Amino acid sequence: MVDVIFESGPTFARQMDAQDDLASFREAFVFAEPDLIYLDGNSLGRLPRRTMDRMRTAIDVQWGRHLIRGWNTDWYQAPERVGEKIGQLVGAGPGQVVVSDSTSVNLFKLAMAALTMRPGRDRIVSDVLNFPSDLYILQGCIRLLDDHHSLHLVSSADGITVDLQTLFDAIDERTALVTLSHVTFKSGFLYDAAAVTERAHQAGALVLWDLSHSVGAVPIELDHWGVDLAVGCTYKYLDGGPGAPAFLYVRHDLQAEARSPIWGWFGQRSPFAFDLEYTPTEGIRCFLVGSPPILSMLAIEPALDHILEAGIERIRRKSIWLTSYLIYLVDTILTPLGFALGSPRDPARRGSHVSIRHPEGYRINRTLIEEMGILPDFREPDNIRLGLAPLYTSFTEVWEAVDRIRRVVAEERYVRYPTERLPVT
Amino acid sequence: MVDVIFESGPTFARQMDAQDDLASFREAFVFAEPDLIYLDGNSLGRLPRRTMDRMRTAIDVQWGRHLIRGWNTDWYQAPERVGEKIGQLVGAGPGQVVVSDSTSVNLFKLAMAALTMRPGRDRIVSDVLNFPSDLYILQGCIRLLDDHHSLHLVSSADGITVDLQTLFDAIDERTALVTLSHVTFKSGFLYDAAAVTERAHQAGALVLWDLSHSVGAVPIELDHWGVDLAVGCTYKYLDGGPGAPAFLYVRHDLQAEARSPIWGWFGQRSPFAFDLEYTPTEGIRCFLVGSPPILSMLAIEPALDHILEAGIERIRRKSIWLTSYLIYLVDTILTPLGFALGSPRDPARRGSHVSIRHPEGYRINRTLIEEMGILPDFREPDNIRLGLAPLYTSFTEVWEAVDRIRRVVAEERYVRYPTERLPVT
Repeated sequence: MVDVIFESGPTFARQMDAQDDLASFREAFVFAEPDLIYLDGNSLGRLPRRTMDRMRTAIDVQWGRHLIRGWNTDWYQAPERVGEKIGQLVGAGPGQVVVSDSTSVNLFKLAMAALTMRPGRDRIVSDVLNFPSDLYILQGCIRLLDDHHSLHLVSSADGITVDLQTLFDAIDERTALVTLSHVTFKSGFLYDAAAVTERAHQAGALVLWDLSHSVGAVPIELDHWGVDLAVGCTYKYLDGGPGAPAFLYVRHDLQAEARSPIWGWFGQRSPFAFDLEYTPTEGIRCFLVGSPPILSMLAIEPALDHILEAGIERIRRKSIWLTSYLIYLVDTILTPLGFALGSPRDPARRGSHVSIRHPEGYRINRTLIEEMGILPDFREPDNIRLGLAPLYTSFTEVWEAVDRIRRVVAEERYVRYPTERLPVT
Repeated sequence: MVDVIFESGPTFARQMDAQDDLASFREAFVFAEPDLIYLDGNSLGRLPRRTMDRMRTAIDVQWGRHLIRGWNTDWYQAPERVGEKIGQLVGAGPGQVVVSDSTSVNLFKLAMAALTMRPGRDRIVSDVLNFPSDLYILQGCIRLLDDHHSLHLVSSADGITVDLQTLFDAIDERTALVTLSHVTFKSGFLYDAAAVTERAHQAGALVLWDLSHSVGAVPIELDHWGVDLAVGCTYKYLDGGPGAPAFLYVRHDLQAEARSPIWGWFGQRSPFAFDLEYTPTEGIRCFLVGSPPILSMLAIEPALDHILEAGIERIRRKSIWLTSYLIYLVDTILTPLGFALGSPRDPARRGSHVSIRHPEGYRINRTLIEEMGILPDFREPDNIRLGLAPLYTSFTEVWEAVDRIRRVVAEERYVRYPTERLPVT
């Protein structure tokens, strides 16, 4: 897909930026520290300018002036309205996506629903690269169902990718559910979701994709791939703000059968009739539970419009250029300094973040943050994750970041920091 | 507690306002439409002025400038920090309250934990006045546990209160859990939580209180009463904003045993170690699940400071005056027009909202909203709920509201509206 011959000097980066047809979207985001190179949009996306205005309206006008009337005029429909916009990004026809709760809570709801829909089967298949919170949720589901199921984690030979055949071999007539991260959180490995879904269906299993690290960066075709269930987060490439509520997808023809284990009034047929008996509403809304966190939910919406306007195909094309260029620079400039690539080389199997590994990764990362004006993040034991957000990351920033990483190592700047980890990341 | 002789004219209301030692707190809130009489603070509290500034900082500075660093400097500790402040309002010593998810999701977590802690018992006791979402959650728990438990709903002879002896008779050696709304959502009935908790413990059952309609309006002494578990909402008298995340309380000495059924990374011992196996963290944080909705969570904090400054005893005293005065006016002015009181007369058994019933309640309520500059809310079949928020509701507003209700009925203004219900409330 990339027919550009990269060069290692800064001029080349500027040329790439000059040809970038998404460059203008950068202006849609807040750059409070223009010199800061932000490479953690895969963890918390930048603040869109529009979101500031939207939130002033939400707080000052909707809450402050409209008060309770805000529910009628805007908020009550927000889980579906925002869900439909996300649906356009994940290839879901109307009525299949809703915004609700956190990714982990949604995974709990859908995994429990899936296991209930496959009563004769006692195995869940995932992999060791999956986001640990997903594995914890699955372990909790298994405990809740009296340890009747087992969780089979497919291994990774290189710690970066999973061999599809190894995965396929693990899926059999005992498998109730295959659930994986579409893009893995550490290495950025991108699954062939269509192929995995097909294989799971051949074996009679259901499939639940966690799209947290792919949505907004990678084309997703849930309907076309025949996916059963999906969840995903809105605060990474979707730029929805810290801890913004997550989304979930349940395929149309499963909605009558799939049942959330958490029965709340927002999923009730007539919540304002206040019946004493729960009757689930029809459609995707039955996966809602309680009143959603409206301020955090409304903050998701403005950025979705930018992403839809840019178009996921253009975003993906730039993402591949950015990550391929970064890997070229890593190979050329950083490998001689002891770095190893922690992400797939094949762009077709890679999301929009790249991990680079170094024995001193923790201290190098800390130096980058504290002295060098770069914000990447660190993932144990030795991964520096560099997230490239196509809507606002420039090629010049990639070049500059690699150059600063080079200086930190070449000049041994990191040695003054302790190896003990700070409390959070 | 009230030794004032009420009078039905507006002068008396102004005298009460002049003597109100909480009157100055009104200035802490936004009054975008000064003539609007807002009587739905029991459903969505008004916007505190401070919250606007706090949210500008949260959005523009923390998200916009600090970006991912916001987690280290502020957000990661927010569930406990805000929880501790709420703890001060509910009589909980440190380390027992945390903000997380919605009230319904928290009820699910704690009800499941409770049922697991009482394995030999198969009954849940609640009442018909409980908020329906709570009952739905319990019904979902029962289904999830293979219909091994039954839900016993204590009835209400008058639709307003529950007879304590009838409740006590329903609690026996089969009872695993007693779970009730401390103040009921429709009638505003206030339970003697200490007595109910004691009776449940005598029978060996656990107690889970939903404090949604009492917190911030009624003194609560969870530790002193020996309560096991509690949940509550933050967007009513706590003024935390639409759908703001809820809180939960687990008594210290139950925290080692009580186990959430939803195992997420925010409840894991070392979330950033990314272990593949879940190990719950010690303490109340183990009831967290996924990344919390930070914007909605931060919006809770400023109002808590106002409430703590005002003091719950002063708030309760004014609340009793407000509701007693309102009931006096209802008796004097509205009962002759066909209204009946839908709330307890005994102030010791009443929260801070008062329901008034009328066969034309729905149309009267709609007229109040659309023509009369009053925002109450309606609860089927015939209840107009009037929420009196001591921090910003004045006695003059109470008088004015009753006078406008009188005019709507006396002048039959409501007859032009259809009886068909609008989609939401």
